[in-house]
Amino acid sequence: MVTDSNNHKFFMQLAIDAAWENQLLAYPNPAVGAIVVEDGRILSIEVHKKAGSSHAEVMALVSAYETKSGKEVDFDKNDSFASHEFLRSFPKDFFSKCSIYVTLEPCSHIGKTPPCASLLGDLNIKNVYIACKDPVAKHSGGEEYLTNLGINVKCGILEHEAKELLEPFTVWQNRAFVVFKLAQSLNGRIGGKNISSLTSRTHMHSIRSVCSKLLIGGSTVRIDRPTLDSRLVKGKAPDVFIYSKDEKEIDRNIPLFNIENRSVEIGDNLDFLNLPSLVMVEGGAGMLEALKDKIDWLLVYQAPTLSANKLSYNADLRLKTLHIDKKEEDIIIWSKKI
Amino acid sequence: MVTDSNNHKFFMQLAIDAAWENQLLAYPNPAVGAIVVEDGRILSIEVHKKAGSSHAEVMALVSAYETKSGKEVDFDKNDSFASHEFLRSFPKDFFSKCSIYVTLEPCSHIGKTPPCASLLGDLNIKNVYIACKDPVAKHSGGEEYLTNLGINVKCGILEHEAKELLEPFTVWQNRAFVVFKLAQSLNGRIGGKNISSLTSRTHMHSIRSVCSKLLIGGSTVRIDRPTLDSRLVKGKAPDVFIYSKDEKEIDRNIPLFNIENRSVEIGDNLDFLNLPSLVMVEGGAGMLEALKDKIDWLLVYQAPTLSANKLSYNADLRLKTLHIDKKEEDIIIWSKKI
Repeated sequence: MVTDSNNHKFFMQLAIDAAWENQLLAYPNPAVGAIVVEDGRILSIEVHKKAGSSHAEVMALVSAYETKSGKEVDFDKNDSFASHEFLRSFPKDFFSKCSIYVTLEPCSHIGKTPPCASLLGDLNIKNVYIACKDPVAKHSGGEEYLTNLGINVKCGILEHEAKELLEPFTVWQNRAFVVFKLAQSLNGRIGGKNISSLTSRTHMHSIRSVCSKLLIGGSTVRIDRPTLDSRLVKGKAPDVFIYSKDEKEIDRNIPLFNIENRSVEIGDNLDFLNLPSLVMVEGGAGMLEALKDKIDWLLVYQAPTLSANKLSYNADLRLKTLHIDKKEEDIIIWSKKI
Repeated sequence: MVTDSNNHKFFMQLAIDAAWENQLLAYPNPAVGAIVVEDGRILSIEVHKKAGSSHAEVMALVSAYETKSGKEVDFDKNDSFASHEFLRSFPKDFFSKCSIYVTLEPCSHIGKTPPCASLLGDLNIKNVYIACKDPVAKHSGGEEYLTNLGINVKCGILEHEAKELLEPFTVWQNRAFVVFKLAQSLNGRIGGKNISSLTSRTHMHSIRSVCSKLLIGGSTVRIDRPTLDSRLVKGKAPDVFIYSKDEKEIDRNIPLFNIENRSVEIGDNLDFLNLPSLVMVEGGAGMLEALKDKIDWLLVYQAPTLSANKLSYNADLRLKTLHIDKKEEDIIIWSKKI
């Protein structure tokens, strides 16, 4: 591959890949990645970590400062106000040769954090490359704001890939975004404890800790007697909805009932999926079949084993792979139903 | 991530990932990747395409010239002699601020192509970063040669990852490197025609076109009646060894017998696996079980479908995932037996 400093797709792909690492975890905010480049040299690659903390652009600018200066900042980059204040204290030309690549249009409104578009304008940044516009009307306007300041703005680089990355955010504006999680071996066997690695389970706990509700099949609850908390990330245990026609069949001594600050509902009315939210589904083949029409994405943790003992599962679903990631032993496969 | 121009691992990983794209395909040469960086800016990412064509370093230097100059060369970069001659015609300082990252120690011997080490020396390149040394004694010495010239050489960046990349090459110096290929759905179902995408099948045909022998189970031959050629890449059809105790059971009208310039053997003596070579195995669960102890790597083409109709397969194997790649619809998983 011949590369050049206009190799926008190369840089944007790095930002998109970084954002995938944090997919769902900033709920209710979107997964966003940003990278800062100066004279073709990558100064930083960052993502927006969680709602309320610094946006990806701000993280990337502070890290770019660290790379350029060789000095570490003495505050938490995730602290949006401290980061904005720090960046605004720079001489006007500090970032004037820099380009920023960001997977989502910089925000133009004051939310929990100050607007990124005005920060980029004040820093006199040279180029702003955007993958896709903000689908939420009240957030958008960043592109126009920056263009009006005379900054070179280019929108639409890897737009399709960025829209896929953004899909959960777009969906949960209006209804539940539903992710079905499966842990399996390479030959598609499920069930039993700890098929997947500690790294995978930790990742899964981090999603549990931010999701609105965990939806699980009654038979899985009865057989596995799970706890369904987020202990591996010391996070909040998710509220649980047990999908079962018969409430009496569920033994209240199952550990998931003994978690503080968690609500547990049992029933077969899934109307809550109409509410804007993030819902993770855990269960086996039966649950997959039952929820087939409600699922947006599948999240598969695939262990590098061929196993003869575990259960195989049946389903007829066509998917599109969105992103894959090798996380130590396992691979993580994000796909959407098509 | 804070980055800086000393971010050796970042650059080396790009070179390693590029090389994986061409894994096995340069047989009997190794998969090698190289990238050229100037002032932290990536000028090129290239791989060694096939035995007899330009080595990765040479490809990357010619592409780096194209990026730096903005001009395309008017010869085939894969032509090693033309590329060497072209590069040696440059003024001494053209690459003197450049670093090259290469996954394997630059060669120091004259093989089908002139030695890379002397080229790098003559070009007065600033830094040579090497992931791992050449395991073949008569090829090595490149690091020492360059160090003696006073060039800054650093060896061992992502050495472990580079050794995994190089494993087939290391093995086939002494005996057959055996790759078991499987095409499956996401839920581990195999069998039937065209589970995997055209892109996956094309990739598989490109391996067939370079491998020493294709080893296939007798029952797969009887049931699928395959052709086993390399038509999708217009390559040489591989020689075939049908693993079967009873030669008479195989119908000679099966298409694989009617391919020109191919030898077909039938038998159960696998002594040919002791010879230095690249052997790809195609077959189902039975063949996987029978060959369990002979397999080095598994190559899985995984389609993004959940399928209820195909066959599930059983095996008990622990693996280590080496590399994953999203190739359009499918994912490709390279793993080794552990």
